[in-house]
Amino acid sequence: MVGYAFMGAAHSQAWRTAPHAFDLPLRPVLAALCGRDRAAAEAAAQRYGFGGVETDWRALLDRDDVQLIDVCTPGDSHAEISVAALEAGKHVLCEKPLANTVPEAEAMAAAAARAQARGVRSMVGFNYRRVPALALARDLIASGRVGEIRHVRASYLQDWLADPAFPLTWRLQKEHAGSGALGDLGAHVVDLAQYLTGQLISGVSGVTATFVPERPIPGGGGRSGPVTVDDAVAFTARLESGALATFEATRFASGRKNALRIEVYGARGSLAFDLERLNELEFCDNTDSAGSTGQATAGFRRILVTEPGHPYLSAWWPPGHVLGWEHTFVNQARDLLTDIAADSDTEPSFADGLQVQRVMAAVQHSAAHASAWTRI
Amino acid sequence: MVGYAFMGAAHSQAWRTAPHAFDLPLRPVLAALCGRDRAAAEAAAQRYGFGGVETDWRALLDRDDVQLIDVCTPGDSHAEISVAALEAGKHVLCEKPLANTVPEAEAMAAAAARAQARGVRSMVGFNYRRVPALALARDLIASGRVGEIRHVRASYLQDWLADPAFPLTWRLQKEHAGSGALGDLGAHVVDLAQYLTGQLISGVSGVTATFVPERPIPGGGGRSGPVTVDDAVAFTARLESGALATFEATRFASGRKNALRIEVYGARGSLAFDLERLNELEFCDNTDSAGSTGQATAGFRRILVTEPGHPYLSAWWPPGHVLGWEHTFVNQARDLLTDIAADSDTEPSFADGLQVQRVMAAVQHSAAHASAWTRI
Amino acid sequence: MVGYAFMGAAHSQAWRTAPHAFDLPLRPVLAALCGRDRAAAEAAAQRYGFGGVETDWRALLDRDDVQLIDVCTPGDSHAEISVAALEAGKHVLCEKPLANTVPEAEAMAAAAARAQARGVRSMVGFNYRRVPALALARDLIASGRVGEIRHVRASYLQDWLADPAFPLTWRLQKEHAGSGALGDLGAHVVDLAQYLTGQLISGVSGVTATFVPERPIPGGGGRSGPVTVDDAVAFTARLESGALATFEATRFASGRKNALRIEVYGARGSLAFDLERLNELEFCDNTDSAGSTGQATAGFRRILVTEPGHPYLSAWWPPGHVLGWEHTFVNQARDLLTDIAADSDTEPSFADGLQVQRVMAAVQHSAAHASAWTRI
Amino acid sequence: MVGYAFMGAAHSQAWRTAPHAFDLPLRPVLAALCGRDRAAAEAAAQRYGFGGVETDWRALLDRDDVQLIDVCTPGDSHAEISVAALEAGKHVLCEKPLANTVPEAEAMAAAAARAQARGVRSMVGFNYRRVPALALARDLIASGRVGEIRHVRASYLQDWLADPAFPLTWRLQKEHAGSGALGDLGAHVVDLAQYLTGQLISGVSGVTATFVPERPIPGGGGRSGPVTVDDAVAFTARLESGALATFEATRFASGRKNALRIEVYGARGSLAFDLERLNELEFCDNTDSAGSTGQATAGFRRILVTEPGHPYLSAWWPPGHVLGWEHTFVNQARDLLTDIAADSDTEPSFADGLQVQRVMAAVQHSAAHASAWTRI
Repeated sequence: MVGYAFMGAAHSQAWRTAPHAFDLPLRPVLAALCGRDRAAAEAAAQRYGFGGVETDWRALLDRDDVQLIDVCTPGDSHAEISVAALEAGKHVLCEKPLANTVPEAEAMAAAAARAQARGVRSMVGFNYRRVPALALARDLIASGRVGEIRHVRASYLQDWLADPAFPLTWRLQKEHAGSGALGDLGAHVVDLAQYLTGQLISGVSGVTATFVPERPIPGGGGRSGPVTVDDAVAFTARLESGALATFEATRFASGRKNALRIEVYGARGSLAFDLERLNELEFCDNTDSAGSTGQATAGFRRILVTEPGHPYLSAWWPPGHVLGWEHTFVNQARDLLTDIAADSDTEPSFADGLQVQRVMAAVQHSAAHASAWTRI
Repeated sequence: MVGYAFMGAAHSQAWRTAPHAFDLPLRPVLAALCGRDRAAAEAAAQRYGFGGVETDWRALLDRDDVQLIDVCTPGDSHAEISVAALEAGKHVLCEKPLANTVPEAEAMAAAAARAQARGVRSMVGFNYRRVPALALARDLIASGRVGEIRHVRASYLQDWLADPAFPLTWRLQKEHAGSGALGDLGAHVVDLAQYLTGQLISGVSGVTATFVPERPIPGGGGRSGPVTVDDAVAFTARLESGALATFEATRFASGRKNALRIEVYGARGSLAFDLERLNELEFCDNTDSAGSTGQATAGFRRILVTEPGHPYLSAWWPPGHVLGWEHTFVNQARDLLTDIAADSDTEPSFADGLQVQRVMAAVQHSAAHASAWTRI
Repeated sequence: MVGYAFMGAAHSQAWRTAPHAFDLPLRPVLAALCGRDRAAAEAAAQRYGFGGVETDWRALLDRDDVQLIDVCTPGDSHAEISVAALEAGKHVLCEKPLANTVPEAEAMAAAAARAQARGVRSMVGFNYRRVPALALARDLIASGRVGEIRHVRASYLQDWLADPAFPLTWRLQKEHAGSGALGDLGAHVVDLAQYLTGQLISGVSGVTATFVPERPIPGGGGRSGPVTVDDAVAFTARLESGALATFEATRFASGRKNALRIEVYGARGSLAFDLERLNELEFCDNTDSAGSTGQATAGFRRILVTEPGHPYLSAWWPPGHVLGWEHTFVNQARDLLTDIAADSDTEPSFADGLQVQRVMAAVQHSAAHASAWTRI
Repeated sequence: MVGYAFMGAAHSQAWRTAPHAFDLPLRPVLAALCGRDRAAAEAAAQRYGFGGVETDWRALLDRDDVQLIDVCTPGDSHAEISVAALEAGKHVLCEKPLANTVPEAEAMAAAAARAQARGVRSMVGFNYRRVPALALARDLIASGRVGEIRHVRASYLQDWLADPAFPLTWRLQKEHAGSGALGDLGAHVVDLAQYLTGQLISGVSGVTATFVPERPIPGGGGRSGPVTVDDAVAFTARLESGALATFEATRFASGRKNALRIEVYGARGSLAFDLERLNELEFCDNTDSAGSTGQATAGFRRILVTEPGHPYLSAWWPPGHVLGWEHTFVNQARDLLTDIAADSDTEPSFADGLQVQRVMAAVQHSAAHASAWTRI
């Protein structure tokens, strides 16, 4: 694993837990954690349960006991590490967004395609596909329960930048993060909109905002530096079928901590989801009626997605014994290891990640050109 | 109409509005309002749209232009006025609880039975039967959508006595109100439990509490007087079928303003309702599944009970244009007038009110005897 | 009153009820209802409680017993009737949207300004300003509880067109309705966004969709005709302060009946509202903490806006005894009559309605020009 | 660890995860898992990550590499194992309910007191004390934010017995489980009511029900056997202060999967919690007002208990990245290990477990004696 911050902690928990929760064909071993600062890396390795550390990620490529590389670094190093790892024959799990630019993402998707021909697998870490409620949502849409889709309404609202005194971390610098709310939060909802509906976004019109242009530099003795990414973004979009979609991502929605919300409206029914209540899926079957009395009983059902037949749930706890955010990574690890063992394609692929990257680039282009409609 | 306080205002609004909302066979005319204080009664009559006032309710019995008497006084005068009115051949709508004691209620039910034989109708004002969502709930239960009933959980929570400085009004004096939370709030949920399930309560075990034993006398120059009714009551109960029921009523639930909640659990499904959201009924059909995929999609549906086919809704606004608390009285007025015109029985009858009175008396008896189980 | 369909019924209920609910300086008399079909108008007048009918609205202008004209017709006649009425010295309440075009709205606003100089008042019927929860929201924003505003997220979702068999009524014809979801639903949220924040919208980028291009002609013997308005619209916007706003209006959101939702996020706190639960306002004061323990207790509070001190509530029922949709019109009638009696300006004025019209025109212009950013 | 079914899986996950999530003074090692069926125990040990197995729990007492024994068996063996372990100088974590009878629980509490004098610690597994939202609730009550407590309303609703075809497992047999919903579910809410309020229950009046008296014997070739425990229980209670409490536990509430709900109402404010949304605490501070405008803004706040300062949260994920049910066991493991290392008392103690046992016995006694009030 390369990187050991927030995502590193979450991924480690997943690798440790997956073999205890699921019957896996492969047993993951936490061989080595890689970080440039040896002392910090060793402390993290100790905490996370890794066998050892490396200070240069290239060293991982040479180790025979490393078959899979988990890329948890900021976006600016995703391409270099992932491409090298794939070429070295290592399976790769890369955090999202896939890259900071479309050309980087194209190179990664190409490398993934070449590697796939040699049986080397890659996955981009859009972990919310592994929320059981969202996997169920996709099943319901795919099986026609929602009907022809008219609307997707997606937003991802957080508030950790609402305080102007919050410091200028790497996530606020374009050279490291590529973009702000767009890549960090918007990428998730773009991926989900396409995943859930089975349709690609065909065009967008966007607007971005940076509300607080300067912030204190961490350890900067009181000096400030410029925020070079978006604080918030909003865009309208069309899906291939003509459905209308709206997206919004922000770090300034006071009181919303991790409110990834997505609603899908179709001719037969509708779905609604909120990540702050990730065990629940709201489903309205507009054809519900009260049988003999003929009275409409349609309404949004709050399905607690913890039943044995629900996606991933056979491995977890009894009904109503809810899962948390970290379980998405355990489920993701299970799918990736299962696919590697079965020598089968995994998803979301780097090609899926590239498509999301193209949508984000189109949003940025539109925002820079007076919101002009931009085709993907 | 006798009495012109809170309930008088609500009933007046209902009588005025009913003929505009519904096609009624009879057109109500607000002939006279009765109150002992002439000046106050005249002001109320002016505000509520009554043609005139009386200061003695007996005068109403002699008036030919009065065919229906609406009893909105405290409980201690319900029996005397209602019995006299029925004997004078006037239809009667009497506020709940029917009376302050079982003997009073028995006399009223007897008078109602005698009057009914002469085509004179009576109704007790359990207006929440006329909440569309609760009428729909009854339909769903009656049509078998809930299955055999196992549990009823009912509570009615308010908080207007949480402040110990709240004054000693008539509602806190046993001689006027009969009881406290029990008769004011508990009566509603007892009636609803029996109405929704179609079953009577067969036994109870209760406990009452008076948290603030003395309160300031209004206009009493700082003196206090004893609270002689219950501040709160809780009781367990059995329905005829063996289902287990729990009831709670209080005026000390800080933050709950008018939280009449009732849940019914059956072998096939469940219902939940909260008066603070009176346009909504939650219904869980436990047989819901996702068809071909076999995945459970059961969950509590939030039905917005504002569709044209829902009870009473043909008269009101388009879907989603919600109704308020006062509409229960308009719907009640419609049903009473329709029944009078059709010369048919109306409900809830005084006999229904008597049954509720017996349950309340049993709760008081149990509470006074160490919660001993008390049969109705 | 001109027009007697859905809005006519709601307005009549308001005029009848206002003097009983509020202490009003003027007592409204339902003098005459106007409709081209005499028989239908007479039936409506009888139902709604009007004294008589006219078949030509011009006749109302000549009647001395008519001091206020309530315009409840489709948008294509708003300008002609309102301007004539104002010039005849009649106060005017005109349903929203103010007009079908900006030039019409300009003429109306000019007529209103001239009339105002002569003491003749006019109001456009954005009735949702009179939802107590939204009036409270405005107070909280105005008093600084939300802080500098960063985001407005507004949507108005209905589903009555989701069925392709729904007929081609006047609301689907551009010549009568001006626009579709935009003018019918979008106008409300545009007005509210500006009302709540006290800021104007400075620019927009929009996209519209017409999902079902042909529908059956009512009484057309099976023939279909073209839908000439938008089924749905989405647009991004900026407020004067730089805040980012998103808007969406649709009649295709299956399961949403009347879901006008508006969220406002500021530096100190946030607000959220849903018209399907119109008695509730969600308010997050992000500065809430647990005092001595220092633990954050911030969260969205569900305020039941039924307390005596809340806007309009002194006239209504005790706490928790909820109001319905129709009460917005009663509150509106109260404000208009109070302002007329006090000879003071009323709001929302025709100038406010014109501003909304300009925003809608900008949205249509943007949608017709590849979503290009369009200044207001 | 003794026992390896549902609770064994949950506890294992906790022991494995705790050292990675928290900085612990002791590092747990999963030395041995004990079960009578060696093959099954070995499979479980493999799955859960234990070093080995034993088939007789007494063997664990002799092992020097075992310092703590985690008792996850049915209630009928809790006393024997726990007492022996404590006497052998092993720390004990025992699943709830502490025992099947009061005498057993008394023996366990006595053994725990003796052991404690020798530095040997014991804890009973009321894991819901370690839900962050409930720990926060206790803090808020303890710091006076709720004021004098008037009401506790607690229920624990599940539905897995609603189907009469569900088999006769050990949980439905009195000799193994002691009681049914009472001990399995009711014990949790009794403990929480006392934990949150800091008060003991002083008396109860209860009623129990067994709705389905016979069920199929697993592997019984179609034969049925009697259900010898309660399917559901309801009881009223008083706290020491005179507050009124209601409790209900059932396995027949269709649609409720794991609905442990608890509401606490006090003179200043209120709290509400639902285990199906375990990251949320609803808190109403009834003293909230809108400052200068004087308008009430009190309402139930939905606090997302995922902030760094919230109980246990410093170890977990960023705000809004929610936890699941299993995290309660990790937090519990952390507290127990921390207390063992610090040589300090831990809670809930076996004495706490005994008190809960006494309440349950009083409920059973009352239910067997016509609900007569029974003092604890």
